Amino acid sequence: MRLLVASNNAKKTLELERILADAGINGLEVLPLASVPEYPEPVEDGRTFADNALIKARAGAAHSGLPTVADDSGLVVEELGGMPGVLSARWSGTHGDDAANNRLLLAQMAHVPDSRRAASFVSVCALVTPDGQEFVTEGRWEGTLLREPAGEGGFGYDPLFQPEGEARSSAQMSPAEKNAVSHRGRALAQLVPHLAQLVR
Amino acid sequence: MRLLVASNNAKKTLELERILADAGINGLEVLPLASVPEYPEPVEDGRTFADNALIKARAGAAHSGLPTVADDSGLVVEELGGMPGVLSARWSGTHGDDAANNRLLLAQMAHVPDSRRAASFVSVCALVTPDGQEFVTEGRWEGTLLREPAGEGGFGYDPLFQPEGEARSSAQMSPAEKNAVSHRGRALAQLVPHLAQLVR
Repeated sequence: MRLLVASNNAKKTLELERILADAGINGLEVLPLASVPEYPEPVEDGRTFADNALIKARAGAAHSGLPTVADDSGLVVEELGGMPGVLSARWSGTHGDDAANNRLLLAQMAHVPDSRRAASFVSVCALVTPDGQEFVTEGRWEGTLLREPAGEGGFGYDPLFQPEGEARSSAQMSPAEKNAVSHRGRALAQLVPHLAQLVR
Repeated sequence: MRLLVASNNAKKTLELERILADAGINGLEVLPLASVPEYPEPVEDGRTFADNALIKARAGAAHSGLPTVADDSGLVVEELGGMPGVLSARWSGTHGDDAANNRLLLAQMAHVPDSRRAASFVSVCALVTPDGQEFVTEGRWEGTLLREPAGEGGFGYDPLFQPEGEARSSAQMSPAEKNAVSHRGRALAQLVPHLAQLVR
């Protein structure tokens, strides 16, 4: 069975592809959005991660006729009332400028003491089939915000995020280490039984 | 009686002075921070407007030996989980750069439909006396966020804020119009009886 991964973020697509490959579902062929011609980018104006994950997965399934997985995810910072949240990728005003987003977050949190730097990565994954089945799962990864970027791996806010029980940032973990415990890994793991069912 | 207004924001100080003058409290002389030599700027790292207003008013009263009023205020945007909130003046990372703060807020809200652009200006005013009396009041001003700046008056997010029942932004209102209904006017009005009491 072919499964579309509806993300325009190349690094996120790679993470999703790796996690799905590691799940070892026989007969599952994962396709990136690049393999679908003329994909009409939907407007991600949902209020929640689930809203946006469903917007993307529904658009992908409708356009491709394939079962489609999408993730919407972000960093939830208590001190910022749960933001950047669904605006994580465009927090600084420019979509996908990780460096600018990281700089802005650091500046906004500059005066905030260590005791108030709790943050969670949250991923909501949606699986939508062309015949209208929908599955939505959520994964969380708890941690704290560093005071300067560390590491070159991952993407987004990974250089600023120190997972609970870790001395490193999530950008300093290998892809395999990260995927085994990350918000995205946890959310996607919950979709695996549904995907295995579809492949049968 | 001399009353210190503990703010380093010249436009906010002017608003507070005007509102207090209009309150017509006999024998009240309002002093700006500039009149107090070597004022040690406190760190405004509170979680709430009330925390920060008290930090400023306590610092002013302790340093000057005068009853001191301070305001902490900001814009509360539902869609942003209540932010910019206490970070309003430094939302873009640079304290007091109104233009940059306005630009960032507009960019973050660019995709948000009109039905989800509710915002409130909130002001918390604290009055602290050298003998340790403390009064804290709150004023709110409800409205919506515009899609581009309008008007040259006021300060902060005034050009983006359209009060309920108004066709103009709060930056298009005269100082007298704004002070009569604004969050700051409402918060300060509740302090007037306490100030009048102190003057007796």
